[in-house]
Amino acid sequence: MFHHVKELQFNARVSGPDPRFARMLLEQFGGPNGELKAAMQYFTQAFLCRRPYPRHSDLLMDIATEEFSHLEIVGATITMLLDGVNGELKNAAERSDLMRMLKGRGERDAMVQEASIPPTFLIESGGGPTVTDSNGVPWSGFFVNSNGDLTVDLRSDIAAESRAKIVYEYLMQFTDDRFVLESLDFLMTREIAHFQMFSAALNELAPNFPPGILQGNPRYTHTYFNMSDGPDIRGPWNQGQGPWPDGDQWVYIGDPATQVRQTRGQLDQTPEGSTITESDIRTMNRELSRKRSREVASQESEAGQQWSTYEAELTGTQR
Amino acid sequence: MFHHVKELQFNARVSGPDPRFARMLLEQFGGPNGELKAAMQYFTQAFLCRRPYPRHSDLLMDIATEEFSHLEIVGATITMLLDGVNGELKNAAERSDLMRMLKGRGERDAMVQEASIPPTFLIESGGGPTVTDSNGVPWSGFFVNSNGDLTVDLRSDIAAESRAKIVYEYLMQFTDDRFVLESLDFLMTREIAHFQMFSAALNELAPNFPPGILQGNPRYTHTYFNMSDGPDIRGPWNQGQGPWPDGDQWVYIGDPATQVRQTRGQLDQTPEGSTITESDIRTMNRELSRKRSREVASQESEAGQQWSTYEAELTGTQR
Amino acid sequence: MFHHVKELQFNARVSGPDPRFARMLLEQFGGPNGELKAAMQYFTQAFLCRRPYPRHSDLLMDIATEEFSHLEIVGATITMLLDGVNGELKNAAERSDLMRMLKGRGERDAMVQEASIPPTFLIESGGGPTVTDSNGVPWSGFFVNSNGDLTVDLRSDIAAESRAKIVYEYLMQFTDDRFVLESLDFLMTREIAHFQMFSAALNELAPNFPPGILQGNPRYTHTYFNMSDGPDIRGPWNQGQGPWPDGDQWVYIGDPATQVRQTRGQLDQTPEGSTITESDIRTMNRELSRKRSREVASQESEAGQQWSTYEAELTGTQR
Amino acid sequence: MFHHVKELQFNARVSGPDPRFARMLLEQFGGPNGELKAAMQYFTQAFLCRRPYPRHSDLLMDIATEEFSHLEIVGATITMLLDGVNGELKNAAERSDLMRMLKGRGERDAMVQEASIPPTFLIESGGGPTVTDSNGVPWSGFFVNSNGDLTVDLRSDIAAESRAKIVYEYLMQFTDDRFVLESLDFLMTREIAHFQMFSAALNELAPNFPPGILQGNPRYTHTYFNMSDGPDIRGPWNQGQGPWPDGDQWVYIGDPATQVRQTRGQLDQTPEGSTITESDIRTMNRELSRKRSREVASQESEAGQQWSTYEAELTGTQR
Amino acid sequence: MFHHVKELQFNARVSGPDPRFARMLLEQFGGPNGELKAAMQYFTQAFLCRRPYPRHSDLLMDIATEEFSHLEIVGATITMLLDGVNGELKNAAERSDLMRMLKGRGERDAMVQEASIPPTFLIESGGGPTVTDSNGVPWSGFFVNSNGDLTVDLRSDIAAESRAKIVYEYLMQFTDDRFVLESLDFLMTREIAHFQMFSAALNELAPNFPPGILQGNPRYTHTYFNMSDGPDIRGPWNQGQGPWPDGDQWVYIGDPATQVRQTRGQLDQTPEGSTITESDIRTMNRELSRKRSREVASQESEAGQQWSTYEAELTGTQR
Amino acid sequence: MFHHVKELQFNARVSGPDPRFARMLLEQFGGPNGELKAAMQYFTQAFLCRRPYPRHSDLLMDIATEEFSHLEIVGATITMLLDGVNGELKNAAERSDLMRMLKGRGERDAMVQEASIPPTFLIESGGGPTVTDSNGVPWSGFFVNSNGDLTVDLRSDIAAESRAKIVYEYLMQFTDDRFVLESLDFLMTREIAHFQMFSAALNELAPNFPPGILQGNPRYTHTYFNMSDGPDIRGPWNQGQGPWPDGDQWVYIGDPATQVRQTRGQLDQTPEGSTITESDIRTMNRELSRKRSREVASQESEAGQQWSTYEAELTGTQR
Repeated sequence: MFHHVKELQFNARVSGPDPRFARMLLEQFGGPNGELKAAMQYFTQAFLCRRPYPRHSDLLMDIATEEFSHLEIVGATITMLLDGVNGELKNAAERSDLMRMLKGRGERDAMVQEASIPPTFLIESGGGPTVTDSNGVPWSGFFVNSNGDLTVDLRSDIAAESRAKIVYEYLMQFTDDRFVLESLDFLMTREIAHFQMFSAALNELAPNFPPGILQGNPRYTHTYFNMSDGPDIRGPWNQGQGPWPDGDQWVYIGDPATQVRQTRGQLDQTPEGSTITESDIRTMNRELSRKRSREVASQESEAGQQWSTYEAELTGTQR
Repeated sequence: MFHHVKELQFNARVSGPDPRFARMLLEQFGGPNGELKAAMQYFTQAFLCRRPYPRHSDLLMDIATEEFSHLEIVGATITMLLDGVNGELKNAAERSDLMRMLKGRGERDAMVQEASIPPTFLIESGGGPTVTDSNGVPWSGFFVNSNGDLTVDLRSDIAAESRAKIVYEYLMQFTDDRFVLESLDFLMTREIAHFQMFSAALNELAPNFPPGILQGNPRYTHTYFNMSDGPDIRGPWNQGQGPWPDGDQWVYIGDPATQVRQTRGQLDQTPEGSTITESDIRTMNRELSRKRSREVASQESEAGQQWSTYEAELTGTQR
Repeated sequence: MFHHVKELQFNARVSGPDPRFARMLLEQFGGPNGELKAAMQYFTQAFLCRRPYPRHSDLLMDIATEEFSHLEIVGATITMLLDGVNGELKNAAERSDLMRMLKGRGERDAMVQEASIPPTFLIESGGGPTVTDSNGVPWSGFFVNSNGDLTVDLRSDIAAESRAKIVYEYLMQFTDDRFVLESLDFLMTREIAHFQMFSAALNELAPNFPPGILQGNPRYTHTYFNMSDGPDIRGPWNQGQGPWPDGDQWVYIGDPATQVRQTRGQLDQTPEGSTITESDIRTMNRELSRKRSREVASQESEAGQQWSTYEAELTGTQR
Repeated sequence: MFHHVKELQFNARVSGPDPRFARMLLEQFGGPNGELKAAMQYFTQAFLCRRPYPRHSDLLMDIATEEFSHLEIVGATITMLLDGVNGELKNAAERSDLMRMLKGRGERDAMVQEASIPPTFLIESGGGPTVTDSNGVPWSGFFVNSNGDLTVDLRSDIAAESRAKIVYEYLMQFTDDRFVLESLDFLMTREIAHFQMFSAALNELAPNFPPGILQGNPRYTHTYFNMSDGPDIRGPWNQGQGPWPDGDQWVYIGDPATQVRQTRGQLDQTPEGSTITESDIRTMNRELSRKRSREVASQESEAGQQWSTYEAELTGTQR
Repeated sequence: MFHHVKELQFNARVSGPDPRFARMLLEQFGGPNGELKAAMQYFTQAFLCRRPYPRHSDLLMDIATEEFSHLEIVGATITMLLDGVNGELKNAAERSDLMRMLKGRGERDAMVQEASIPPTFLIESGGGPTVTDSNGVPWSGFFVNSNGDLTVDLRSDIAAESRAKIVYEYLMQFTDDRFVLESLDFLMTREIAHFQMFSAALNELAPNFPPGILQGNPRYTHTYFNMSDGPDIRGPWNQGQGPWPDGDQWVYIGDPATQVRQTRGQLDQTPEGSTITESDIRTMNRELSRKRSREVASQESEAGQQWSTYEAELTGTQR
Repeated sequence: MFHHVKELQFNARVSGPDPRFARMLLEQFGGPNGELKAAMQYFTQAFLCRRPYPRHSDLLMDIATEEFSHLEIVGATITMLLDGVNGELKNAAERSDLMRMLKGRGERDAMVQEASIPPTFLIESGGGPTVTDSNGVPWSGFFVNSNGDLTVDLRSDIAAESRAKIVYEYLMQFTDDRFVLESLDFLMTREIAHFQMFSAALNELAPNFPPGILQGNPRYTHTYFNMSDGPDIRGPWNQGQGPWPDGDQWVYIGDPATQVRQTRGQLDQTPEGSTITESDIRTMNRELSRKRSREVASQESEAGQQWSTYEAELTGTQR
């Protein structure tokens, strides 16, 4: 269960209203790389690994909880940046001073700001955050990547933190408010810290490549299809030894259309570049498959029917 | 900020796997009337009223936090109802036993169950909850109603609790698992309790009708337009005194097309049914408008730039 | 079936083009609390109650029809506020005067207005309404709340009218056009009138609390979980007698984490605050359940296979 | 404004409940080619052409109104096909008979049917239609195509009627209920009738090709780019005279990659196949452009500020 | 399979950055009538007709491939119009010059432009295209119309090309950049060319009316329901011979409500206006139905299990 | 521009129809981790880096093109798995054999299969793929992650490939068709190959941590907030040296609520765990910032106004 601590995790402050930046910041409230996405992603992932990998589940739930706390910081900042809107809207019987207020200090800023405010701040939310991105598009459950395999989920999380980080970095270019910058700096830095926590957790899970259980078929793992014409462009991704042991190397198919025709659509393609055999693969697959299946399944059948254990059960103090 | 307590608020248990019901229950995880919607709705509403109405904000945040805790109960139950799926999926190298497992005790149930499982449980989430409704449609930020006016927001909350309650009531018809029924009974009952908390909070805010600030124009408040032909159908919503003081009453327009033509589209319609004058309305509007605007605005300007107050500030122990 | 009357229900007029306000008003055409949402919500609800509660169904269909008529008023107003756009767009072979036209009377307004116009007005709709909210996000079937239980549906409707009302109230702050204000005043007032019609209809349905059929479990109905730390904040929603008869009262759990641990996640919690017994509840549930089920089911089996009755059947004049 | 006639336009009947087909039929209630889409498309289109092309606007509004009437037929049929669900759900205190009821006549049908029912029929809508397609995905405002140009809009409408027709044709394969088939036959036939009405309206608008105002650039109008390798495949769409006068013909670019390189990305491509000159095009553009712009703009400025004319204004009987 | 040619099909150029127009142009990247929609629509349609109608499938795939190539032109243009944004964003450590840059040449333009840029260009995409429309609403798979019947699909395609054409026509009003206008002119003209290719392909499929297989029921094909009051408005869509042979004509129902009541909801309506009999219809249906079913089914069973044929199979050179 | 090669990249075959698996496979056509998502993600990313990082852009475009080719393989397989549906639907005049056909070999399979087919396969797409996931939810432009920074984008791509890989791995459990398994094995393996290509490309970009430009603030980079109660759970993500040089280490905040109160919401928190100073950070930020900004900006201004270079320009053969 959750508990709410009345103070914000970071001391969010603003120098004054700035509806234009409030709009931009909304991206981190309800946008595809925002705090709600992060919180819900780790929260959802935590369920499946709770029994077989309780330490990882604890990590996921800790960071999920921190992201909910960051969501609160972002929401509070947006509300402060829109300060005054709600009060003016309440002044419903008199021609509101809203326009003048929105325009702030100079005529010039005024226009820019007014034009940039999504109307939903004014006519739907009354001056608070909406569960949308900065264009007003609603948050979607599809933002959440959770696939029930830790070697996949942690990679999704590393990528998610990378995106959240860059969005904060970009946002920092669009405000001069030193208090807001202070909060953004904290929030951006925490994405970096989480990135490293997830990396550490992934490294602990060995083997973790390829993601999931099954090895790739050696007939196709080392092949680069050059899908475009013009001069060949080569790099560490299609030439040399690649990420494999000595003896392996990238195989570069310069003209895939011809290769496809000549191999009956790969069917006659023989493995190249790889020193591993299909039989090795089968063995590796079987072993990892049993290991992981056992890890997960045993825990499931053991714990079975009850999610939590309560103190009263442990101490025998239940009524 | 939020804090996570490792135990669930309610001791969620299941008798055994039931993928078919897991699907149905998903409606309360990521559906339009589910726990995430409720949590995010109250959480979002709490920002705007935090300063002018701190007690109401506290209520909203407490219930939001409880709804997040319910979301966790629902997610945990879905995961337990899908027990075994993830373990079998990990058994990737061997022809999985998944089908047999899903089929459970009898051939008959098997087919029904298999057919009812959304494929995303099997090929996307690996046997855990997805942030979607029971059809697999993703949660949307549009589920959240938050309009920055407590007399509106609390009504949205009362309706939201009503819908959540009926969905739990319906769900209870589709499982025989007594442990699951126990959890559903708790969750359903809490919606009723929240309904009454929100009602109490709304009653405390006087005046609270109409929602918002502005009174209706007496030319149109008492009119019922009978938009259909056939025999007149009357009820307390279009005849008699209505919700007004003595002397007022519903005005029934039996043939709106004719009325519209004869009144130049209402322009020549004189007030009927109502004893209140337009001038009364103007006075009421101005008064409430000032009162509310002052309540909100004064608090905003007072608190201004910092969201929370920290102990270190109060005790002077800051470094 | 529906019939179209060529005149608008209200004599919608505008003083002149105002693309900026046209955008805002779009919120009531295709937004989450707009006229289409209202129309489709009541229309959809009317089907299920048509036989068991024909008077309520008639009410729902009347108001649905009025909301479709309001949708037309809003669409007509948006079109008039965009007057000129379509004509200029047709002037496709010459450098259009559109920019100049959009800028209206003064340079200053021009910029604001141009910047505020969603591009879809100009490059998709050709100067008419789109079925979106004011940010261009499309209307969604999820806006509609219809749950097949009148005590729930009418509460959804009361909340829907509250939200529609406040959005009109907010909108009235953003235009100075007296004709447009006149239309908004009519539309806003009708939401208040509908609010009272739905309230009257709900009151007529007794018993109507809790929504649906099942009573809450007395072990959880009277409990307030204080999900946050800091000083206790009390109000009529968590102290005193509450909405119950003498002898009942709110039970305040100050430290839910501890309570949860000590009660094995509520399992060992005994009913508190309530004087009603679980056996009373069972009786009430059974009785209401039978009553409602009978009301609905009898009508269904009776009417059965044909939706409408036609005059020709009644008068025997069918061919 | 709209008016509701209590009888359905077609006498919708069913032989008995069939939840499986109710699900399929939902496609025509809230699906991308369903009745709501059609109704809202024509309704939205009618606004912009109301003044310059009042007869076409009347046609659009008549068919929109008929489509709303069809939506009602579809909703009524779905409700009847789900007969019994709501009554059983109301039987909340006793273990419901819902499962048995859903299973209908035989064990075999039972399973199929149960499995095919979207859970939202049971746990959200209570046995009535939802504003979604047959998979439970909500209706979207993006279904509506309305572009403010009649030569475009009518083509969108012809295509929309084609799609609606084929969906009814497909649906007729999945029910044996002769009453339902009767309704589907009516609804399908009306799509054909509307198709021909829209075609007639389009033919009346001359010139109507190309859609919109501007002619194509003759350098690119007659060119077919063969974007694939293998043997040339020719047809009336890339060889012969095409839809043009004598002397014109399709130009077939067999190897676009080479052509692109040799013409600096079309810049050096000279017009081929066409006998019309760029100067002819400019003249045609200017003429049509003026004609249409005048048609639209004159009407707009004339009518200006009021949408409807009311009898009271005409007869001078206004108060 | 696809192959990428490094050059753009059209030599896209820009005179200088113009973030405001970049936003508008986004409509053709990820909007409902944009290039991705067109590409995916024809691509998806091509699968089903590949065997029974290989020439039509080739046409669809050629145009799909051209539309992907147009998508690339649009994406490249948007990127060039946003030139500078990404570079400035990378200047993360210093107060960016972004604002000044966005403002361009004059103060006046500056404001307009800044205000018009969707924040997602700046804080999500880093200055490149997003897969959204010009308001930032994401592309949806529902944009694609593909119904598995060529007489329907080609009509959807003709309408799609019409809409894409008008959007380009409108767009051309909002830029003065002659290079951009050049590209738009090419893209717009290609929509006209595709329109005529699809028309030619549809004409070749005889019979192609009505879309699909089944004829309409003659009782309802010739009927016009006048769903509105006021003076009768007549046109070629509801009077005269209509699109039928001599002897047939439109039947105008002036007062549908009365007609409905008197015909028991059409049940007693006799065929009018049409000289074709229900028995003729049955024969036509059966014949076309057999013809089409045979065309499709024979090809399906023949080709069966393998999608492509490879050179190596034909020449016997497979390894 | 793109070019279409008529053969599939892999020789997709099926043993016979299997509508149930066709549905599951749809996840890789229009699902959040499917081929269209991958193709559009890399395609969209390629625009921004085309000039400053042409080799990386070429890699992205090559893999994008391969993913489009995989999309075609998936679409072809789905169509073959639905073989027969379209032919039977065309048999519109006679009671179709569709049900029998869908049921396949045995009664038991029949039911399962029929129940599992989304109705849209039957009544919308006519037996071909839809641009949706396996539940029928449409593909969304939000699936695409493209943030204009290669160190971020490549991490998004590595995660995307991980998810696509696990979905293929899961899918392989749900079919016994050896031809389909062969195709899935190819497609799954290619995701692994792409994973390694993206990893190699990321490694080449040094420095690449943190993603983007700005370093984290050392006051927050090394801190782990234990957001839950109960026993401390430690791992390489919150204890020990972490990913830093000697002397650095994780700082574990066991009771964040207290820490927050005592540090005025982090304001008084001093850097801990890190040996790097804020001044070092500033230097690093400035340097990387200049380097990257220069890389991007110089290329942008250089290339400027034209996207591609054409042979005719190089060889002077332009007309």
